[in-house]
Order: sequence, then C-alpha cells, then structure tokens
Amino acid sequence: MKIWQKNIDVDSFVESFTVGKDREMDLQLAGADVLGSLAHTRMLHSIGLMDQEDLDAVQAELKNIYKEILAGDFQIEDSVEDVHSQVEMMLTQRVGEAGKKIHSGRSRNDQVLVDLKLYFRSEIESIFKNTEELFQELILLSNKYQHVLMPGYTHLQIAMPSSFGLWFGAYAESLVDDLQLLKAAWNVCNKNPLGSAAGYGSSFPLNRTMTTQLLGFEDLNYNVVYAQMGRGKTERILAQAMSSIAASLAKFAMDVTLFINQNFGFISFPAHLTTGSSIMPHKKNPDVFELIRSRCNKIQALPNEIAMMTTNLPVGYHRDLQLLKENLFPSFQSLNDCLAIAKYMLENISIKDNILDDPKYDYLFSVEVVNNEVLKGVPFREAYKQIGIDIEEGRFKPAKEVNHSHEGSIGNLCNHQIERMFQQIKQEFGFDKVDQALQDLLK
Amino acid sequence: MKIWQKNIDVDSFVESFTVGKDREMDLQLAGADVLGSLAHTRMLHSIGLMDQEDLDAVQAELKNIYKEILAGDFQIEDSVEDVHSQVEMMLTQRVGEAGKKIHSGRSRNDQVLVDLKLYFRSEIESIFKNTEELFQELILLSNKYQHVLMPGYTHLQIAMPSSFGLWFGAYAESLVDDLQLLKAAWNVCNKNPLGSAAGYGSSFPLNRTMTTQLLGFEDLNYNVVYAQMGRGKTERILAQAMSSIAASLAKFAMDVTLFINQNFGFISFPAHLTTGSSIMPHKKNPDVFELIRSRCNKIQALPNEIAMMTTNLPVGYHRDLQLLKENLFPSFQSLNDCLAIAKYMLENISIKDNILDDPKYDYLFSVEVVNNEVLKGVPFREAYKQIGIDIEEGRFKPAKEVNHSHEGSIGNLCNHQIERMFQQIKQEFGFDKVDQALQDLLK
Amino acid sequence: MKIWQKNIDVDSFVESFTVGKDREMDLQLAGADVLGSLAHTRMLHSIGLMDQEDLDAVQAELKNIYKEILAGDFQIEDSVEDVHSQVEMMLTQRVGEAGKKIHSGRSRNDQVLVDLKLYFRSEIESIFKNTEELFQELILLSNKYQHVLMPGYTHLQIAMPSSFGLWFGAYAESLVDDLQLLKAAWNVCNKNPLGSAAGYGSSFPLNRTMTTQLLGFEDLNYNVVYAQMGRGKTERILAQAMSSIAASLAKFAMDVTLFINQNFGFISFPAHLTTGSSIMPHKKNPDVFELIRSRCNKIQALPNEIAMMTTNLPVGYHRDLQLLKENLFPSFQSLNDCLAIAKYMLENISIKDNILDDPKYDYLFSVEVVNNEVLKGVPFREAYKQIGIDIEEGRFKPAKEVNHSHEGSIGNLCNHQIERMFQQIKQEFGFDKVDQALQDLLK
Amino acid sequence: MKIWQKNIDVDSFVESFTVGKDREMDLQLAGADVLGSLAHTRMLHSIGLMDQEDLDAVQAELKNIYKEILAGDFQIEDSVEDVHSQVEMMLTQRVGEAGKKIHSGRSRNDQVLVDLKLYFRSEIESIFKNTEELFQELILLSNKYQHVLMPGYTHLQIAMPSSFGLWFGAYAESLVDDLQLLKAAWNVCNKNPLGSAAGYGSSFPLNRTMTTQLLGFEDLNYNVVYAQMGRGKTERILAQAMSSIAASLAKFAMDVTLFINQNFGFISFPAHLTTGSSIMPHKKNPDVFELIRSRCNKIQALPNEIAMMTTNLPVGYHRDLQLLKENLFPSFQSLNDCLAIAKYMLENISIKDNILDDPKYDYLFSVEVVNNEVLKGVPFREAYKQIGIDIEEGRFKPAKEVNHSHEGSIGNLCNHQIERMFQQIKQEFGFDKVDQALQDLLK
Repeated sequence: MKIWQKNIDVDSFVESFTVGKDREMDLQLAGADVLGSLAHTRMLHSIGLMDQEDLDAVQAELKNIYKEILAGDFQIEDSVEDVHSQVEMMLTQRVGEAGKKIHSGRSRNDQVLVDLKLYFRSEIESIFKNTEELFQELILLSNKYQHVLMPGYTHLQIAMPSSFGLWFGAYAESLVDDLQLLKAAWNVCNKNPLGSAAGYGSSFPLNRTMTTQLLGFEDLNYNVVYAQMGRGKTERILAQAMSSIAASLAKFAMDVTLFINQNFGFISFPAHLTTGSSIMPHKKNPDVFELIRSRCNKIQALPNEIAMMTTNLPVGYHRDLQLLKENLFPSFQSLNDCLAIAKYMLENISIKDNILDDPKYDYLFSVEVVNNEVLKGVPFREAYKQIGIDIEEGRFKPAKEVNHSHEGSIGNLCNHQIERMFQQIKQEFGFDKVDQALQDLLK
Repeated sequence: MKIWQKNIDVDSFVESFTVGKDREMDLQLAGADVLGSLAHTRMLHSIGLMDQEDLDAVQAELKNIYKEILAGDFQIEDSVEDVHSQVEMMLTQRVGEAGKKIHSGRSRNDQVLVDLKLYFRSEIESIFKNTEELFQELILLSNKYQHVLMPGYTHLQIAMPSSFGLWFGAYAESLVDDLQLLKAAWNVCNKNPLGSAAGYGSSFPLNRTMTTQLLGFEDLNYNVVYAQMGRGKTERILAQAMSSIAASLAKFAMDVTLFINQNFGFISFPAHLTTGSSIMPHKKNPDVFELIRSRCNKIQALPNEIAMMTTNLPVGYHRDLQLLKENLFPSFQSLNDCLAIAKYMLENISIKDNILDDPKYDYLFSVEVVNNEVLKGVPFREAYKQIGIDIEEGRFKPAKEVNHSHEGSIGNLCNHQIERMFQQIKQEFGFDKVDQALQDLLK
Repeated sequence: MKIWQKNIDVDSFVESFTVGKDREMDLQLAGADVLGSLAHTRMLHSIGLMDQEDLDAVQAELKNIYKEILAGDFQIEDSVEDVHSQVEMMLTQRVGEAGKKIHSGRSRNDQVLVDLKLYFRSEIESIFKNTEELFQELILLSNKYQHVLMPGYTHLQIAMPSSFGLWFGAYAESLVDDLQLLKAAWNVCNKNPLGSAAGYGSSFPLNRTMTTQLLGFEDLNYNVVYAQMGRGKTERILAQAMSSIAASLAKFAMDVTLFINQNFGFISFPAHLTTGSSIMPHKKNPDVFELIRSRCNKIQALPNEIAMMTTNLPVGYHRDLQLLKENLFPSFQSLNDCLAIAKYMLENISIKDNILDDPKYDYLFSVEVVNNEVLKGVPFREAYKQIGIDIEEGRFKPAKEVNHSHEGSIGNLCNHQIERMFQQIKQEFGFDKVDQALQDLLK
Repeated sequence: MKIWQKNIDVDSFVESFTVGKDREMDLQLAGADVLGSLAHTRMLHSIGLMDQEDLDAVQAELKNIYKEILAGDFQIEDSVEDVHSQVEMMLTQRVGEAGKKIHSGRSRNDQVLVDLKLYFRSEIESIFKNTEELFQELILLSNKYQHVLMPGYTHLQIAMPSSFGLWFGAYAESLVDDLQLLKAAWNVCNKNPLGSAAGYGSSFPLNRTMTTQLLGFEDLNYNVVYAQMGRGKTERILAQAMSSIAASLAKFAMDVTLFINQNFGFISFPAHLTTGSSIMPHKKNPDVFELIRSRCNKIQALPNEIAMMTTNLPVGYHRDLQLLKENLFPSFQSLNDCLAIAKYMLENISIKDNILDDPKYDYLFSVEVVNNEVLKGVPFREAYKQIGIDIEEGRFKPAKEVNHSHEGSIGNLCNHQIERMFQQIKQEFGFDKVDQALQDLLK
C-alpha cells in the first residue's frame, strides 16, 4: 500500500531504490507517530472535523498501538511504505472509517516533521542522561585522585606539574560546555511544526496552539514554510551538538591510549577489559578507547555530511531529506554506547602513584622555581632568564612541591562549581515538563 | 624580540614558517589584549604582586595604548613575534620596569585564551546586530507582501499556493533558530580562562574571580586544564553557530538565483545591483547572491576544517591551535558582509504581482479542492482519489482562492510571534552587562 | 572463539562494543579471505613451512569454502569474532592440524589488509562497469538528440543556445575524467601488503613476490610499515575516487530536478517512474533523482569522514581503522545502485522539442549577432556595445540559427573522441590480467 | 574599467563585495593569461580573424608583458576588475586597435578556465619537485639508519621490533602512492578548455586542436559544456591529490612530536630549530612539526570545502566558482613550504642509538620467540599459547636478535624498488614535453 498510489503501478526497481532503509529507520519513529496522531485528532475534534464517537475510537486504539510499540510488537509490513501508513492502516483495520479521517489537515511532511521533533527530544534526553552519568564518574575520580600528581605537557613536551584531579575534572567541565550546544538543539527541537502540512499550511481552521500544548512543545514553528525548512536544519544542529560531546570523548580516548602506552604507563585497566593480539602474546590493547575515539570522530564528521546533503537545496521539501535518517538515527545509539562504556571503563581504571619521582620529570618544576624568585622580588623576565641558564648548565635543583591555591588549580579544583554549572544547565532543559505532557496525552 | 629567546639564534626559515600570518591576525586581538592586561594588573596589585605606583603607571599607559589601537595607530613590528610581546614591549619602553612585571602569574597561553574570548564576544555581538538588521528587513518585507501569492514547490514541483509573506517570513524565523546556536557559543565564550597560565595553573595566589568580574565574564573556566582545552573547541563551537546563520543565508541566496531566473521571473533587482557578461550584452547576473551563497557555503565548511585540525590531539596546548586564527578571523568579516549586503539588496528587491494568473499554476489549488470536499463530509482518502482522477482526465477546475487562517499560514503569518521570539533570545545574551563592564575597566 | 583469547574472559559489554558490526561487514570479505589463504599457503609450502600433503588438503578445502561463499552458504557464527577466524576454524574442523598451520608468517593485520585490497579491486571493477553502462547511455542520448536545442544558462540566467546533445555529452565526458581518480585508486589497491604481518614483518623467509604474482597484484607494498600505513589511506583514496563519480551524478540529478520542474519543462519521465503526494493528487515527483542526488552527496562527504577518523593517528595499527568498513562497504552498493538506476531512468526520458520557439529565449542569440558583426569587420568590443544598446532599446532581432562547427560545439560534438578517451583509460586498468590470475589461483 | 560595463554605474558596495580578493588572487594567473592569449591569437590568425600585422604586434607585446610579469613588474590596477582586463588594457594601450581584437572567439569563462589549467599544471610540477626532494631525503635516512632498531607499536602498545630504516622508508613509499592522485589531477588539468567560450561554444570556426598543441596540452576538454563544468571539479580533484600528500606529512609530523617527547626520546633536533616557552625555561618545542601537522590537516579539509561550495549547483557557470581561488591558491604555497621545511628539518635530525637495550622493550621479541618454536615444528597456535603463559608467569626470555629477510622487512628494505616506483610515476607525468611547448610559444 502506498497512499499516493492511484491506478499506476510503480516500477519495482524504482520502488526498492526509493524506499531504501526507510522501513527500518521508521520503526524508531513509531511511538512519536502515535503521539502526534493522538494530539492531532483531539485538535480535529475541537474544530469540528472529527466527531466524539470517532475520536474516542481513534484515541483508544492509538493508545493500544502505542502499548504494542512499547512491547516490541510493532512492525512495518513489506507492502507498506512507511510508519505513517502502517499506523493509519492498522487503525483503519481496527476502527473502520474513523481511521481514514485522521489525515485531514495534515500531510506526511508535517507528520514526519513532528515525529522527528518528538523523537529527537527523547534522544536528547537519553544523551543528557548518559552524559550526566559520565560527568559524575569524572567528578568522583577527580575528587578521589586530587592529590596524585602527573606530568603536564604542552607541545607534548614535559611542561609543569599536573594531577589526576585536574585531568579528570577537565573532561567533566568540558561536558558542561558541550551541553550548551545540546541545549540549543533542544530549543530548536522543542517547537511544534504540526499544522504546516506540506510546507504551505492548510485551508482547515487548525488550532496549532492546541497541539503545541498537548505535545508539550515550548513554542511553535510558526511560519509554515519555515516549519518545513527546519527539516535538515534541525538534524544538522542536533548533529553539531552531538559532535561537541563526541569531540570531548574522542580527546579523552586519545589521552587514555597515550597514558596506557608503556612509555607513559600512567594508567591501566584490568586484563578482561583489554584485548589481545593474534601473534603477540603479551599484548593488552585498549581497543575500547580506540573504538570510542573512532566512533566519536565519525560523529564529528556527521554535521558536515548533513550539510553536504542539504546545502544549495532551494526552499520546499525535497526527497533528499529522507536519507538523513540513515545518518543520524544510528549515531544516537553509537554516542550513548560510547558514553556508557567510557563510564564503565572509568569505574575500573587504575592510577599509578608517585609518577613524578622519576628524575626525567624534574624540569616540570622550573616555573615553580622562577616564581619563587619573583616572590622574592626578582623581576619575572630576569628570573626566567637565570633559571634557563641554570638548566642549560646543569645547576637546576627543583623543589618538588606544588602549592597551587587559586580557583581551578591543583590545590583547589572547584569541582563543586563545575557541578553547580552542570545543575544549572540541567534545569534549563525542563525535561519534567515535557515528560508530564506526554504522560497526560497517553492517559 | 622573541620573549622565549635566550642565547640561541632561531633559524630564519623556521622563524618565518612558525610566525606565519600571526602578526596580521594578532592585530585584531590588540584591544582585547590590553583589556586583559588592565584586569590582570589590577588583580596582581590586589594580591600584592604589583605596588600602587606601578599599577597606576601601567593602567594609565595601557589605556593610552588602547586609544592608539582604536585610532588605528597600533602596529606589530617585524622584529616582534606577536601582539602580546608588542604591547608588553611598548609598555616597558614607556613606563620602565613596571612593564616587565605584568606577565607575572600568567603565560602567553592564558593571555591568548582570554584575548580570544574577549574578541569572540565582541564579534558575536557584531554578528548578532547584522543578523538583527536582516531579520527586521525580512519581517518588513513579509508584512508588506503578505497578500502577494507565489507558487509553493515541493520536490521542485508545483505544489500549493504560497506567498511572498510566507517566503520572507520563513527566513526571518530561520534566523531566530540560528541564534540559539549563537547563544550557545556566547555562553561558551563568556567564561574566563585567565589564570590558567600554560594550562596547569600558577603557584601565585591569583584571584581569578576578580578578573572574571572586571572583564564582565559570566563565570570562570574553573579547571585550568579545561581552560586550555577550550582552545580549538571554542573556535569550533563559534564556527558551528556561524555555519547555521550561513546555511540560512545560502539557502535564501539559492532561492533568489532561482526566482530571478527567467523561467521563474518572480523577483528582480535594479540593473546597478546586478552585473553583466563580457560577451552577452543582455545579461543581468545575480552575482551578489551567488557570492553570498558561495561565501556562506565556505563558512558552512569551517567547523569541519577546525575539527580536522584539532581532532586526536591529546590534552595540553599544541602549536597547531595557532593556525585556527587564519580560518576563523576572516570569516567574521565575511559573514557580516553577507548579512549586510543581503539586507541592502532586499531593500531594493522588486516583486512580481499576479504570478498565479498563469494557467500553468492551476494545479497549485488541487489540495484546496480536496479539502473543500472533506469539509462537505467526504472522507479525505476518497476525495483525494477523485480529484486525482479529475486531473488525469482533464476535468479539474480550481477555485483560485486561498483562505488559510491558522497560525503561521498565508492569512495569519504570526510575524509578531516571530518578533517576540527574537526579542526573547536577544535579552538572554545580555550584551549591555558585558559592554558596561568593559567601559568601567577603561574608565 | 577469539584467537587471541588465553585464560581470561572478556567482559561481554566490552565484547559487543568492540565487535560491533564486524561480522556483518566481514561477510563481504569472505571470498577475498580465501583467495589470500590460497596464495599464502602455496607460498608457505614453497619455503618449506607446509608439506605437500597439508598443502593439498588445505587448497582443496579452501576451494570448497570458496564455492560455498559464492553459493551464499557461508556464515560467520556468533561465537566467532571475524571472517578470518571463521575460515580458519572451518578449515581446521575439516582438515585437522593442517588448518592450524596456515596462520604461520602472517598476522590478522596483513590478512585483513590483503582481503581489503582484493575486495576493493573487485568493487572498483563493478563501479567501472556501471559507470561504463551509464557512459554509453549518455553518449547514445547525446548522439540521438544532437540537433534538439535547449537554452544554455550562466548564473542560472538565459545565456546562449545549447543542445541536448551537449548536455548529455557533457556528463559522459565528466565520467571520463572521474575515471582518472578511479584509476589512481586502482593503482593504490593493486599492490600486495601480504607478508607485512602486524606491520613489522616476519622472521620467516617469506616470498612476498610469489604471493604478489599469485594474487595478480601489479607490485608490492614493499616497506612493511608502509603496508600497514596503507590502511585508512587506501580507503580514503578510494572514497575520493567514488566522490568524483558521485559529484558528476549529483550534479546531473540537480539538472534533472530543475529541467523537469514545470517552469522549465524540458524533460519528463513516464508516470510509473515518478511518485505522488499524500495530499496533492497532481504531483509526479522526481524522487529517484532526488535520492540519487542525496546518496551521491553522502558519498561526497565520505572521504572527509574517513580523514576525520584517521588523521593524527601515529604510525602503527589502531583499532579505529576497523570502523572504516561500516562507512565504506555500504557505499559501494549505494553508488552502483545510483549508476544503474540513472541509466534505467535515462532509457525512459522524454525530451521536449522546439523549446527555443518561445520568445523568452530570444536573447540567447545575442552573442551570435555580435559575432556576425565581428565577422563583418567590426571590432568585438564595439559590436558588443552596440548590441547591448539595441537590446536595451528594444531593437534586438535575433537570427535564430546556430552554426557552431568547432571541436566540441553544438554542430560537432566529438563524441567519438570522448569515447576514444574512455577506451584509453579502460585499457589502463587491465582488469583481464587480474581476473585471469584469480581464476588460475582457484583452478 | 569593467569590460561588461555599459552606461550604468555599479553600486560601489556591490562592487567591492563582488571583486573581493580577486585582484590579489589573479596576480598568480598573470603568466598563464599571457600564454593563453599567445596561443589564442595565433589561432585567430590561422582562421583569418586576425591579420599578420596585428598578430605580430600582439605577439611581441604579449611577450614583453610576460617578461614584466616574470620580473615582478606587473600589477592589477584598482580600477581594473581582473587579470584578463588588465592584460587586454595594457595591450590595447601599447598596440592600439589590434589589442581589442584578441577577445574574439572567447569569453572570460574559457579564458579563466585555460589560465587555471596552465597555472595548476605549473603548481603540480612544483609540488612534485618538493615531494621528490623530501622523498630522496627519506630514502637517504632510511638507508643510513637501516640497522638502528626502534620499538614498533600497534594500538600504541609495544609490539614488535622496528627500525629507523623502516620508519623513514615507510613515509617515502607513502609519498609514491600519493603521487598516483597527483598524476590523476595532472591528467585532468592537462586538457584544453579554450574555445568553450561561456560554456556553449562559439559561432567562429575556432581551431581548438591548434591551441591544444601550442599550449602543450595532452588532449582537449571536447564538449564545451563539460569544459565549463570542469571548473570547481578540477579544483576539487587537485585538492584531493594535495590532501593525500598532506595526510602523509601530517602523520609523519604526529610521529615526530611523539618520538621527540621525553617519554619516548627517540629523536631530537638542534636547539636552534626548536622554540621555547614564555614561562618554562627548559622547553624545546617541536613547533615546526606541529605547524606542518596543522597546515596539512587544513589542506586535508580543503576538498570538502570545495565540494561544499560546488555541490548542487546546476549546469553552467556560477559566480560561486570565483571564490575557489581564495581556498586553493594559498594552499599551494602552504604545501610546498611544509614539504621544504620537513626536508630541512630531517637534514638536521638526530637519532638515538641502542633504544631497545631498555628492558621495558623486552616483550617486543615475543613473536620472534614464538616463530622460533614454529620453525622447530611446533604448530603456531600452540607455540603462541605457550609463550603467552611464559610471559604471564615471568619466565619469558627474549633473544634480542632480529633476522628478517623478506621483501620490505628490517633486513631487506627494498628501497631501490621504492625508488624504481617513484621514477616510474615521474616519467608518466611528462613535465619536459609541457615545458618545451611553453618555451616554444614564448620564443
């Protein structure tokens, strides 16, 4: 069944090419599609386009279908083009004529638009939660190892003393900034496109404010042409937000592969969390972090891929946009997996103690020695020059003590401030309000 | 003069390769660099690392240098490596020993970090203002031409009636969503990295909260390792925000080149705003919009370029990051130019009237006819099928009237709501607070 | 079974994360894996590391497994990590101890390297063949419609007369240049990495020249470190070659969606090759070409994705590289589908005649009129100026005749030259030689 | 002077926006522009569109202008739009009416096309030469240090013995494969677009085969629509070729920053080729290699940038293409600088001896020990298991000897084969033939 089919058979080659992976991808939209129809039909009833009896039948059956979806009992049949047609067909089979009326006042274009926004909201919430768990693990480790020193590098050269407290905490704070982009994506997703029909609105007296409230959206995509234009753009913005979290995670994974390397040897993981080699019996490879890095770098490339597929398309819907599902949908699972396994690995990390006792790290303390001269009254540039000469002439004697006290330094990590910033942005999302609206709709 | 130079000559080939375009780029940071030093020295005084006399001399002279920068009288000499060294050298030449003390408790790493954040804040404000002007022009045109109909296309096929009101308004609303990302970039930029030194903090008892307030930052980059990690990341996030505005503008430019094409012929510009051909005397080419499109697509590629240059670099500063200036700095001017010239062109646009009188646009009204049947009680799917058969058999007679009334439709553009959303996000930036802080610092 | 497993259980979460989609992807390497082992074992025998009896048993059984793969009867079991382990396990089950000896002198690293090169060679051959078929269809259409004129546009403005002969022929010639990159990719793939083991060679006296000849490679990847370094690089180069074909195809698809649009109306397709709308009964949408465009733009983004995943990885194998399979393998099918369906659609294209009779195309002939003046002796710049004034003052009278005769112009398409260039590059690939070597190996 | 200007003033804002950086970029095309005109005018004379007297005057003066360009005495005046107008204006000022005739039978579109192809050919030759010099230095170092062992890593874990001979040689061989793409780009550039005019040919009886020979092109871009379509595409293909060399160089730079790090400490450079820190007096940073990496990663992003700016543009010239100059032209200098400075640094590299004496590298030899067991007749899988248990139980005793003899291994680098492959591809370019043609044209 293809709902745009009249009397002409569509060539089967064309059909398989155009349908592509849509059935597989659309499965993930099934719940959102039912939610959209629940709101749309209540609105149709409110403007006189669906009578009470039909509404009751349709609402009851849509809620049944929603339960089947949750239970994993929903499928898109091979003869059915997409999730929207599948839900409508099931409904019509079960409640008769009333089912045929639910498409009044909308197009598949705004149906998929609203499905995508609902689905993206729910995926953003998942990503947030996994990010939160990793954040908390990083803060925990930062606090736990705040007094364990490690070398700090610049230009990958030994530079100044650092600590595991700083290292773990840095990535925790990085995630906080990443959430700024996720919040922007949330704001873009949390506006209602339903009622824009094929991108040019409808002659029916739709009440778009009503569906906005029913679906828990913060606001409308008002202009119907813009509502359609949001497709592709929303995906790109969401991918940009994901790419930011992915970049933090990939960088952390790079650090791990370096610090677990035998030339550094700062950290290790239990043998059952590493992998071996088919010819080198001593190997314990950090495959998990290499794959986190690789997956996250793939996600870093995603916004560009979406831009390449959407740039220079003039106003109005184009079928090109359908393919964005295949790029974006699997990346939700992939990013969530990376966040979860990173946390899992960190729960099992071992940290090497007394790293800085090794004399090769003596020069880490040269700045401390310069600063001590400054505190005695020597101008900075002169002290700097003198210590440089001492080092070159082999006279340098480091005082291996670190007494950093300012905000964010080794001795004063300010993790509570970083946690405060995290809580602040968490509040701004307002997940509760959205969850409540959907629960009300399904009651 | 290179401040890290001791007794060894740096090879001149290496020098020119490493300095690159830094002097040219750094000129744009000069004002920010002085602001950073004004705050840093006041803080040094507060913790006893600079006496009142030195502070007074340094503050007065930094303000003089700031005025020279504003007046365009500031240069980075060929023998000087970067803007930080130039300012420090001028200061030392003018106020003597006091000038040498200003580098205490900081590194060039956090100096450039704070310069960049201050500079980016100021560029975000410029981009916002140009976006606002274009936004207002689009709203003005949307209101002015709200009753002029045009064809709406899907799949680039004639689809349903649209209007110039919808078309202009759609891009206005698109800019509002773009500002969500710009706001995220603003939030990331509006945190203070100063005091992180080379990325591992300082043994001096710095008061980072004080410099945060003096420079009008909303918060700190607490963790000093994260403060350094923000380099590259901040640039990428800002580029992502710019890419979103650029994508809206590029899409609009694509529409313009299509609608000015003689097969569409919907819009035109005065001859003096178009260009000719070296061999075709009749040509009036929309070069301005082609170049807006091209420049904006270049900006769309910028986040990926930054990601490619920063991915897989382990924690800690790398010289790679210096080159990001060359990518990003010129794109500020480029995006602002595109926004400004788009507005300028739109002030001169001419709109064709009565486009839909042409019979080739009759089919635009097929959905209206279907909907009229639905309002008479025919189920949607049946009405749809019947009109389809009418069209195929040549019996289709459109009623060329559009009575769309719902939110965001042709008859109810809701531009006031779109303006309300714009004002809302504008307030969230809080430019005034930042501007006030900088004025106080310069007093 | 994991061949690197000793006595420690690998955590199941880690296992599913690290294996990922490898089993699914590896199925495509099965044939190549057997070919590699056929060559490797013959070489092992030649250097005394496998006796004749073992060799005979192994060769016979590998050929059986190859037939099972061709017949679609090959699977990778859930308990088996990858295709290499599966083949080795089947072999050992069937021929006993001899099966365990085939891994001598190689590592999974060079095993997958050689599998990939063999697989890529075969995919390049498929892409070439589909490109050839599309090329021939384009030449056929170019010859068929060489006298049918259409408007030529520059800046999307009506410019000069063109023809369908030129339009179709242009894309044929574009594919010829694209094949330059495919040939470069072929040359990179057609070198033997087998014998590089884990990237540092083997202490066995391997005869790499022998396996090179047996597998039909043109040359060796000599340096064993480079052989390993080719992973990721080979994929990127192949993706770059594919992106070039994809760019030609995407551009052609953009033209089609434009020229089928009702404002142009130059071409059409039968109804059964277009699709409809769920609410607009008159629509016949060019979905096939929109999806060709979208898929091909996705392929255009592929080289960047691979670069993002491989850049800044230091020398030596990293697990990151495994994920490249997921990007690249499905794109072979996708590009081949696009090439095949484009040809299929073109076999059904209809061309509109007498397009230029419409007076809106009169200005197309302005250059002809200028040139006629030049041929009469008027300097070009003066003639150009005069005709420009004629047009502005409404006096322009075009002679609607086109007499272009030079190489590659409307009247002299030179399609035979374009075909000659195609044949030339086809010869350079030398597919026959490679196919013959593999047949000999399987005899 | 704008040659398409008639009686209407172009708005100055529009003018500065549209001209952009064209004058600066076009300076690099000046020589190529004169070469194109030398060939074009000889062809015009051959078909009777320019008499002998005019031809002689024009040829003589164009050669004078060429000398001025070589001498650095050529400028594009502020009132002149581009290089083509500048050359034509100078010519007309010096030889009178004859100068006005040179634009017959061509458009600025094919003029810039041929300029670009000539310029790109010359830049490809420069890149080739710098690549050759680096290649030779790498081979030299590989031979010189063939017996100096270093650890080989996989997953960044200590894996097997490697050598500096292998390491340097691997990058030499990598460059050979990169040249495959450069050769593809050369083939695409080495075809003549002149005579395609504005992309739709000319009514003059041009002899395009003649200009092809005069300019030393291998073949024609026959189809005039394709000749125009080559713009943007040629740039992307050339950028792809450059990105491949850049990727090899960036990877090498990553290795250098790692191996110069104090935890590895395998290599070093003299102090005058490294740089210091503003606060850490002991630092000797590998800035040159960090900037090579960064510049090369920027070049790796270039093909994507060009694709983003050109994708989805329908057939025919668009002004967008002009901006590609700004992306591509500076990258020639940048890549050549990177190649040259990499060679320069390598001439000064110091290699650490006896690295493997450190006991932490003992496990490198585990595979050797396994293989020795195999050579004694133990099946590989059993030997592997036994040594694994020995390692876990602390009984592992490595024989620190490496006796690799096969092609491309530590003991048999096959650098002469790698040099042979280099010479082979060098011959295929045929630079001499092209250089000779241009010398003849300038005689």
